[in-house]
Amino acid sequence: MGPGEQATATDLQNAYELGKLIAQQGWVLLTGGRNVGVMDAANQGAKSANGLTVGILPGNNTNDVSESVDLAIVTDLGNARNNINVLSADVVIACGMSAGTAAEIALALKANKKVILLHNNQESKLFFQRLSPENIYFVDSLVEVIKITNKLLV
Amino acid sequence: MGPGEQATATDLQNAYELGKLIAQQGWVLLTGGRNVGVMDAANQGAKSANGLTVGILPGNNTNDVSESVDLAIVTDLGNARNNINVLSADVVIACGMSAGTAAEIALALKANKKVILLHNNQESKLFFQRLSPENIYFVDSLVEVIKITNKLLV
Amino acid sequence: MGPGEQATATDLQNAYELGKLIAQQGWVLLTGGRNVGVMDAANQGAKSANGLTVGILPGNNTNDVSESVDLAIVTDLGNARNNINVLSADVVIACGMSAGTAAEIALALKANKKVILLHNNQESKLFFQRLSPENIYFVDSLVEVIKITNKLLV
Amino acid sequence: MGPGEQATATDLQNAYELGKLIAQQGWVLLTGGRNVGVMDAANQGAKSANGLTVGILPGNNTNDVSESVDLAIVTDLGNARNNINVLSADVVIACGMSAGTAAEIALALKANKKVILLHNNQESKLFFQRLSPENIYFVDSLVEVIKITNKLLV
Repeated sequence: MGPGEQATATDLQNAYELGKLIAQQGWVLLTGGRNVGVMDAANQGAKSANGLTVGILPGNNTNDVSESVDLAIVTDLGNARNNINVLSADVVIACGMSAGTAAEIALALKANKKVILLHNNQESKLFFQRLSPENIYFVDSLVEVIKITNKLLV
Repeated sequence: MGPGEQATATDLQNAYELGKLIAQQGWVLLTGGRNVGVMDAANQGAKSANGLTVGILPGNNTNDVSESVDLAIVTDLGNARNNINVLSADVVIACGMSAGTAAEIALALKANKKVILLHNNQESKLFFQRLSPENIYFVDSLVEVIKITNKLLV
Repeated sequence: MGPGEQATATDLQNAYELGKLIAQQGWVLLTGGRNVGVMDAANQGAKSANGLTVGILPGNNTNDVSESVDLAIVTDLGNARNNINVLSADVVIACGMSAGTAAEIALALKANKKVILLHNNQESKLFFQRLSPENIYFVDSLVEVIKITNKLLV
Repeated sequence: MGPGEQATATDLQNAYELGKLIAQQGWVLLTGGRNVGVMDAANQGAKSANGLTVGILPGNNTNDVSESVDLAIVTDLGNARNNINVLSADVVIACGMSAGTAAEIALALKANKKVILLHNNQESKLFFQRLSPENIYFVDSLVEVIKITNKLLV
């Protein structure tokens, strides 16, 4: 998970590498599916390693789907589709922060899902740490994300 | 698409064979994902031919998922998830009839999707024929379903 | 419930009179809320008798709300909002038929709601009669709709 | 908006007073509708001043509705109903904080809605201030909430 239009260059690079690592682990990548930002970059990364990718789209068609999404789920739910993203995921990993990303993390924590924040800002860390200390992980390297995810998936 | 708990033996057999044929064509099978009725039978058929299966679940967990679903999408939308099923499908194929199936067919027709009814009763044929003559196909054999779907996918 | 853009003159007249009668009974009118077809006419009728009206909108804003809706619920769910309409209603009354209306009736029957079809065509009657004989009523006068609804609300 | 089961005594008192003030202004109160926490307290406050109250429920029935809700909207969407709450509101006011409340605030900010946080903790202030400085207000008195809302509604 992560920003669409507002993603930074760092977010995009992290997302690409993360998508690649996820695919290399043999995991399925699930994202919001659009052809922008962290979603698009993560899907590209996953396909570069021949991964399988699922995109949960907000609109009522596939016009804005990332070219690197294999399976597009067309929800026509707008931002309410965020809840599907987190409920369908085994582990939620966030690269960067935006209002949409914050909503997804909060919904994930509400559903008792484990959430990993990669390279996030201090305000985000303090806020989510207070909100749900038992379900949130703050991580500063991609290797660490994969290591923690592997433990959580056992 | 088709009945869950109310599926007849014929519905289940059709669904199993249809799932198998869909997989043999190299298509992805998308269903409502639960471990009953037409959904479950179609997924079993698809897996018997090594197909890829996606299940769009109504609940907030995977407790009732068919064992033959590869990718479970957990929506927590109840019957509102029917709209996702039809919007995400290239072609909607119905085996049998129930209130849930009727809702899916109607939503598919509303979204201008093509719908194939396999072996259906006379009341269903006359109703949907009047509702949307340009988008509905009535078919009495599995071979015919695949033939029409192939034409629609071009 | 009833057609939007495809409503006939008879549907609109029935919807207006029905909205008025509903308001005169002191009931709240709940519709799909848009400024077209049966929704709009029913809301106008209800307001002509000083009723209270709720509109469950499909979009993400109120641009297309009927001017006769008092309380607009903005869902951004597209046609998935149909399920909210029927779950929130005590009794579902349909004027006319369209793909969207058929989806709502089917969802209502699936949720074990009582459904009254006013002045409907023969194909619709036979189809829904077969689908759920215990929950569906076919009625040819507005007075009868109110009488049956009163009985169902006890 | 505000916590359900996790609401503090202060949250509940604020919510009750706020509901009362909202009703006294002649505004309609819209909440998540359940019979717990901030939702329930705000509805009770509004009814103590003869206000009109709308509750957007997560479940598929009204079993858990607050007794002080006049109009129950039954969504069967689980936490995805949060998006309806914020899209349907003219102004979003939050008493207290929880994962569900955080999701609603984030969705509201994403939809460019104005959000007022009443008596909130420092971590929340810093997080949402960074997320969307132009749409968020931090307020420490109920009188101030009403004053700002009045300005925003013009």
